Amino acid sequence: MSMTAELISVGTELLLGNIVNTNAAFLAQECAKLGLSVYYQTTVGDNPGRLKAAVEQALERSDVVILSGGLGPTQDDLTKEITAEAFGMKLVEDDHTRERIQAYFDARGTKKIAENNWKQAMVPEGAVVVDNDNGTAPGLILEKDGKTAILLPGPPGELIPMFQKDIFPWLHQRQPETIVSEMVKLCGIGESSAEMMIADLIAAQSNPTIATYAKTGEVHLRVTARAEDEESAKRMMAPVLKELKVRFGNHIYTMDEHVSLEDAVVGLLQEQGLTVTTVESCTGGLIAGRLVNVPGVSEVFKQGFVTYSNKAKRKLVGVKKTTLREFGAVSDKTAREMARGAVLVTGADAAVAVTGIAGPDGGTEEKPVGLVYIAAAVRGQTYVQECHFTGNRAKIRESTVAAALTLLRRAVLETAGN
Amino acid sequence: MSMTAELISVGTELLLGNIVNTNAAFLAQECAKLGLSVYYQTTVGDNPGRLKAAVEQALERSDVVILSGGLGPTQDDLTKEITAEAFGMKLVEDDHTRERIQAYFDARGTKKIAENNWKQAMVPEGAVVVDNDNGTAPGLILEKDGKTAILLPGPPGELIPMFQKDIFPWLHQRQPETIVSEMVKLCGIGESSAEMMIADLIAAQSNPTIATYAKTGEVHLRVTARAEDEESAKRMMAPVLKELKVRFGNHIYTMDEHVSLEDAVVGLLQEQGLTVTTVESCTGGLIAGRLVNVPGVSEVFKQGFVTYSNKAKRKLVGVKKTTLREFGAVSDKTAREMARGAVLVTGADAAVAVTGIAGPDGGTEEKPVGLVYIAAAVRGQTYVQECHFTGNRAKIRESTVAAALTLLRRAVLETAGN
Repeated sequence: MSMTAELISVGTELLLGNIVNTNAAFLAQECAKLGLSVYYQTTVGDNPGRLKAAVEQALERSDVVILSGGLGPTQDDLTKEITAEAFGMKLVEDDHTRERIQAYFDARGTKKIAENNWKQAMVPEGAVVVDNDNGTAPGLILEKDGKTAILLPGPPGELIPMFQKDIFPWLHQRQPETIVSEMVKLCGIGESSAEMMIADLIAAQSNPTIATYAKTGEVHLRVTARAEDEESAKRMMAPVLKELKVRFGNHIYTMDEHVSLEDAVVGLLQEQGLTVTTVESCTGGLIAGRLVNVPGVSEVFKQGFVTYSNKAKRKLVGVKKTTLREFGAVSDKTAREMARGAVLVTGADAAVAVTGIAGPDGGTEEKPVGLVYIAAAVRGQTYVQECHFTGNRAKIRESTVAAALTLLRRAVLETAGN
Repeated sequence: MSMTAELISVGTELLLGNIVNTNAAFLAQECAKLGLSVYYQTTVGDNPGRLKAAVEQALERSDVVILSGGLGPTQDDLTKEITAEAFGMKLVEDDHTRERIQAYFDARGTKKIAENNWKQAMVPEGAVVVDNDNGTAPGLILEKDGKTAILLPGPPGELIPMFQKDIFPWLHQRQPETIVSEMVKLCGIGESSAEMMIADLIAAQSNPTIATYAKTGEVHLRVTARAEDEESAKRMMAPVLKELKVRFGNHIYTMDEHVSLEDAVVGLLQEQGLTVTTVESCTGGLIAGRLVNVPGVSEVFKQGFVTYSNKAKRKLVGVKKTTLREFGAVSDKTAREMARGAVLVTGADAAVAVTGIAGPDGGTEEKPVGLVYIAAAVRGQTYVQECHFTGNRAKIRESTVAAALTLLRRAVLETAGN
């Protein structure tokens, strides 16, 4: 029987729908990685009675309760006070935290620290105090009678690094089993095709398990193994990872959880010493925008074009007037000329170009909304792909960006021997 | 005393953190608009025992329980069965829904409908059946002894339109009071400044109320009034809206909830008959990408440049070599030349340009990460703004995009008399 965890998010802004609860998704995913079973997630406001009831109910039914939010300096912030009460602990001042709060404000040149900030230096007696490197409220771990409460600051910029640095290892050590998990990220294949290709593995699985997650234009597979120690878990996982490699081949763009599709594409270009340029119509800069997500992209990406009008397609990258007239802006031939033209104009080694109809207007029976042509020109070869995407304007554009990165990657890989 | 509502999200994918619970934020915001007080949000999996307990607890403490997810065709989908049981209703086949399911598959050319789909035509006896225009599982409204359960399909593409079309009006009618709410969206002002400017209004408020929401580079104010009828509510709201207009003036880019900053900027350009071009360094295409979010943008936006390297800044938009050498790529002067050069090169009426250091590397003491220069050239005048953003690479870039749209808007407004 694995340990159970439960999440309680505290905050009126969540109850009002002002913000989306991304913390809950993050914490749930981390718990899954740790092998903790999460059966409940609750959101409550800053109301003492309701918060107290939620904490007590959670402690009754779960081993570990992770609370986020309500640790700040204001009177409304009650998470610590109420959890300490549930554990029968009184609050005492923590010198170390007091010093850290002072240092935090000193570093920011704050002359006069508002009095209420010192409330954050009060901690439940006996609790583990977890330093907050990005804010003033420390994290706290309370334990009693086999029950654990973990209190985290609400802002994701504080919660996520704190969890990764200190809470994850702490929980990992307390787990009776070791959980090892690896992410296999695929592009250029749909979720249902991917699932079909490993239906036999999924049907037969118990340990390790394979879970599939669909992202726009991508499928992620998380492989998780449980064992007595890390080495055994890794040994159990190895044949599954090997089998996935055999089945998905070049669809796998990374086996590193922290690597995104644009990271992989930029890495591949760097590896092969290629520069790339972009020519975008319906995506209007979003492909370049994703490449520029990657720090250090300047080595491979120098410039890009947004050619939204026909005239811009002609002037900036030399698409022929006759091509536009005979085949239209949204055509195989235009996409091809956009990519090839960009290589000529910029002197880049590669180019990726897209032209399509993102809607909601502009579709015809012959060329419906969602029709997109993508071209990738690399080392003298041009790959063109016709795509039919569904969804609203934003979704079609997002799908186009992912497909463009995927086609560029494929073109680079397939021409690598040339 | 206003009616209370409670949200229950059903789905293992939420408990595992595979997806972020955007439905909860959407529903919470709609409830706030309706004047329903939401004190609890719970997420549970497809486990019958735990789901039943959650439904019973919610019905005990809240007037309206809104459940989402678990209405599909599979055996795991139990929300309807368990809620019907809690209301003491048996399931009966609904002919109308059966016909709609048939029509749904017919429209998609499905020859053989999987048998389990018909489970979705079974509805609790006496429940209101709400048509699903985007899927096969209908929504359901169950009422008994002053308690209401509303069951919605989980996919946001089904839940959101169903809620807006049928559930919102249904709840609105049942509210003893009428709630009217308006959104006032601001740009070019920070949240704390905005709050300070209306601190007196917020301190004195009871009805109407003003709630502030911070977005990247924007602040949204929701003004909500409750009254016996819509006309009275609107009458109560009018002086508050008028006062906000006086205080925030041109910072208000729209008073329409459905209008985004890019919508407003594109609308303004259309109104004034101006075309615009973009020149982007650190944002790498994201400003153009946001403009292209707007359907019909082709009237004002024809082309844009991503000039990531110094050479691209020189070649594509004619930034001077001496400027780059003497002042650097990240400088007031470079931003200015990028914008002016783009106007010259493209013949557009306006240009917006950005150059900055998005990090994590590349910062120096003199030019730290987060330093960004934004220039907007309109009708012969050039506005330049020096910004210092905080956060990670993505956050700095996102803030830059919002600030660039804001500066462009300001430049267009301020030069309008020329």
